[in-house]
Amino acid sequence: MSSPDLMLTLSQKALNLLQEDANKIEKLIEVQMENLTTRKCPLYEEVLDTQMYGLSREIDFAIRAELISEAAGKQLLAKLERNLAKLYEALNIKG
Amino acid sequence: MSSPDLMLTLSQKALNLLQEDANKIEKLIEVQMENLTTRKCPLYEEVLDTQMYGLSREIDFAIRAELISEAAGKQLLAKLERNLAKLYEALNIKG
Repeated sequence: MSSPDLMLTLSQKALNLLQEDANKIEKLIEVQMENLTTRKCPLYEEVLDTQMYGLSREIDFAIRAELISEAAGKQLLAKLERNLAKLYEALNIKG
Repeated sequence: MSSPDLMLTLSQKALNLLQEDANKIEKLIEVQMENLTTRKCPLYEEVLDTQMYGLSREIDFAIRAELISEAAGKQLLAKLERNLAKLYEALNIKG
């Protein structure tokens, strides 16, 4: 494999891994959205916060390791943050 | 740069970044070790736990992205965990 090809492969792999982890959080948000009535589970928010922090550290590392661009990293997080904001908004209306 | 060289460079860069983050935690442990009398700062343990979790996620990601070996990742964490255990032991004796 040539160097540019290898770099592309590694970057793509890194992005896929981050997307996988983002999807897990997305799934957590969806499940909670479907179960708004069970809002009094404080552990759920705790888990989401912890997962978001973990992912942000992974993304930050991938950027510093020059595997992904800062823009790509920000985009991944921004989408999740929007959905998380929607969830919290829905929880507040419900609560 | 040839592919093997590029891979080596990226792996080395990844390891250096992780080592940097490990050093920051090491520093936090040292400072707390030198200030055992101020043990009643619960935030300190909280910060250390959060930082350890963040680093473990970075390391896990670097392993999955095939930038570092599992052994290298485990070694980084193990050393910190030993020092952290020493700190908690010292805190308990003091407390």
